[in-house]
Amino acid sequence: MKTHISRRDWLASTAGIVGTLAASSPAGGQTPPTDTTKRPGAGARPLGSRSGFETPTRTAGSPAASQTPLQDLHGTITPADLHFERHHGGVPEIDPANYKLLIHGMVQRPTVFTLDDLKRFPATSGIHFLECSGNWFGRNGGPETTPQRVCGMTSQSEWTGVPLATLFREVGADPSATWFLAEGQDAAVMTRSVPMEKAWDDAILAYAQNGEAIRPEQGYPVRLFLPGWEGNASVKWLRRLELSDRPFMTREETSKYTDTLPDGTARQFSFVFDARSIITSPAYPEQIQPGWVEIRGIAWSGRGRIARVEISTDRGQSWQSANLQGPVLPKAHVRFRHMWRWDGGETEIVSRAVDESGYEQPERALLLAARAERNKPYHLNPVVGWTIQRDGRVFSQQDPTI
Amino acid sequence: MKTHISRRDWLASTAGIVGTLAASSPAGGQTPPTDTTKRPGAGARPLGSRSGFETPTRTAGSPAASQTPLQDLHGTITPADLHFERHHGGVPEIDPANYKLLIHGMVQRPTVFTLDDLKRFPATSGIHFLECSGNWFGRNGGPETTPQRVCGMTSQSEWTGVPLATLFREVGADPSATWFLAEGQDAAVMTRSVPMEKAWDDAILAYAQNGEAIRPEQGYPVRLFLPGWEGNASVKWLRRLELSDRPFMTREETSKYTDTLPDGTARQFSFVFDARSIITSPAYPEQIQPGWVEIRGIAWSGRGRIARVEISTDRGQSWQSANLQGPVLPKAHVRFRHMWRWDGGETEIVSRAVDESGYEQPERALLLAARAERNKPYHLNPVVGWTIQRDGRVFSQQDPTI
Repeated sequence: MKTHISRRDWLASTAGIVGTLAASSPAGGQTPPTDTTKRPGAGARPLGSRSGFETPTRTAGSPAASQTPLQDLHGTITPADLHFERHHGGVPEIDPANYKLLIHGMVQRPTVFTLDDLKRFPATSGIHFLECSGNWFGRNGGPETTPQRVCGMTSQSEWTGVPLATLFREVGADPSATWFLAEGQDAAVMTRSVPMEKAWDDAILAYAQNGEAIRPEQGYPVRLFLPGWEGNASVKWLRRLELSDRPFMTREETSKYTDTLPDGTARQFSFVFDARSIITSPAYPEQIQPGWVEIRGIAWSGRGRIARVEISTDRGQSWQSANLQGPVLPKAHVRFRHMWRWDGGETEIVSRAVDESGYEQPERALLLAARAERNKPYHLNPVVGWTIQRDGRVFSQQDPTI
Repeated sequence: MKTHISRRDWLASTAGIVGTLAASSPAGGQTPPTDTTKRPGAGARPLGSRSGFETPTRTAGSPAASQTPLQDLHGTITPADLHFERHHGGVPEIDPANYKLLIHGMVQRPTVFTLDDLKRFPATSGIHFLECSGNWFGRNGGPETTPQRVCGMTSQSEWTGVPLATLFREVGADPSATWFLAEGQDAAVMTRSVPMEKAWDDAILAYAQNGEAIRPEQGYPVRLFLPGWEGNASVKWLRRLELSDRPFMTREETSKYTDTLPDGTARQFSFVFDARSIITSPAYPEQIQPGWVEIRGIAWSGRGRIARVEISTDRGQSWQSANLQGPVLPKAHVRFRHMWRWDGGETEIVSRAVDESGYEQPERALLLAARAERNKPYHLNPVVGWTIQRDGRVFSQQDPTI
């Protein structure tokens, strides 16, 4: 609680500001134990660590996945140790000195690259989100569901690597190749087919994340990275790329990661993430006070830039545009903020994102009506929000259509 | 070393790609111990950690400073635990629940803010470098000096906090106030005067760095952050701001952080960092091979955006513009890259930055001629480079004028 102090109070405090300001300081003019000006602090260290008062953590209810604590984060960058993880056979340990990548199939020169080979090619960097195709756990959550549980399988990093187009030119890709297979060297041997267009556009083989080597759970030492596309296709611990003139119809793109439609067919290869947003504050388990509240969150789209984020604080009756923190980058989380004066009444606050293609984040009911299986978790990006109670407590919005 | 393989070789490898590719795999068709596809990997964890094969560290030769390993980094973001540190009384441990900030002096309402108070104000984020005013250790280095030792006291983060202008309006800053004092609660009670113009421009009170709470050595829980200005003035562990109509003439802006000039006077308040660049690869201790080499580095300016970075690979006889990785942000490290075909001859490679104000990074001799004390380490941004020997070994360029 901020405190206005009188001129006399603060003049009196000039002899020892900390003692005067700390309500808990002992009487008698002794140096309080919390006076950090009276004793030397800790020395420099080769590696820093968090303050002991800060303990953000990923969820880890499953050995195969963990989620980013969106409600604890500011800005748009996700610290590497809090980046969500998802793997189908655990995280392999790979010695970079032994790392090899084979590119073969419809190419003139089948080639094996070492990690050093890859690092010698011209590099590129970009700040992009990475999201799991199944990032919609909120559907099973009750009122006490945090942003981390609703959709904490999206994170953002600055990724650096070699453009896949460079490597495909190096090996002499056949112009009639239309798909390539990406295969990982984890215990699941994760395998996906990717259209060649993505290689010629902006796909990279990433070896760095937020400045440093990518983390083990992100595919160390090398992963495929497809900006804006579903995370599962950005194959980690990459060991092989095979060019072809058709998709390979792997398990992960036939029985999994498809969307069953009402007419009985299934939509396959839903690569591009549609626009999405979530309010990360206020959110469960916060409790707010009447008065000005800054509504904060993130929005993103696999199609390009976010054009706007609209906020409703009256259950969807009226909408206002939030401020977007620049620079608004393509295929990247953007931080939105919106000042709201809460009058103390019960209400709901929701956000919806619109991207530069004109796509608008859909209502839950609309989205689910387009799918045959409500419990299939892939590629779901519904508008979500939070219920504000009269006592200021915030809970995850419960939608009877789910 | 990349390897072209024959069609027969890779067809033969389809039965077991890893076994075929790994030259060290045992004969007899046994699963090699490095085959990560044959056993489950590690499970998900609440916090990630680096691969055991990656051990980037700050230098820590002094208890009062450590430097970022620029030669190990890609892109522009510095992981928080590798951000350089510099402190004059060690790193204090501060309980955020007890944190208080006093704003007083020429204001209508002297006010004490808690951390929660600060976080409730409208927030802003920006990606900016932070550099120490004394970031020129290369002057004492021999040929075996890494980029980290030359100028590893610059790092980059996405900073989030409350604009100082918001708080100064909140307390009713007197329009005739022209300076404010920023005071830290470390054992040095670091104290600096800052012009009010910077508060109305882009100064923030930062509480987050790369998404999470700022680290202890960066001023946890709250620091002043002045984009583009010397790091020392961005006072950490901030406890007090006092508005005035003149500078306070503290020790750190009179006897320290001033530049002695040839006419016997001293330049005071050299806040804005001039444009600077460094090639981070190839650099000591690398050894390169003849052929194509991508020259990589970072450039930055406190005045705004970098306009261009010029590279010379022939001891300064000719210059070429490097590619700048977009987005080129103001008051931020930008990554530059330049393809160079090394012919195997002895040479020197150097970079020089030009910013949008037209300022050009100066030669060492020119810069030092403008200063009276060659060993005073503040505000030095000379063009630096690397010597390439015939055997490909790279050493720090030694300048006889130093």
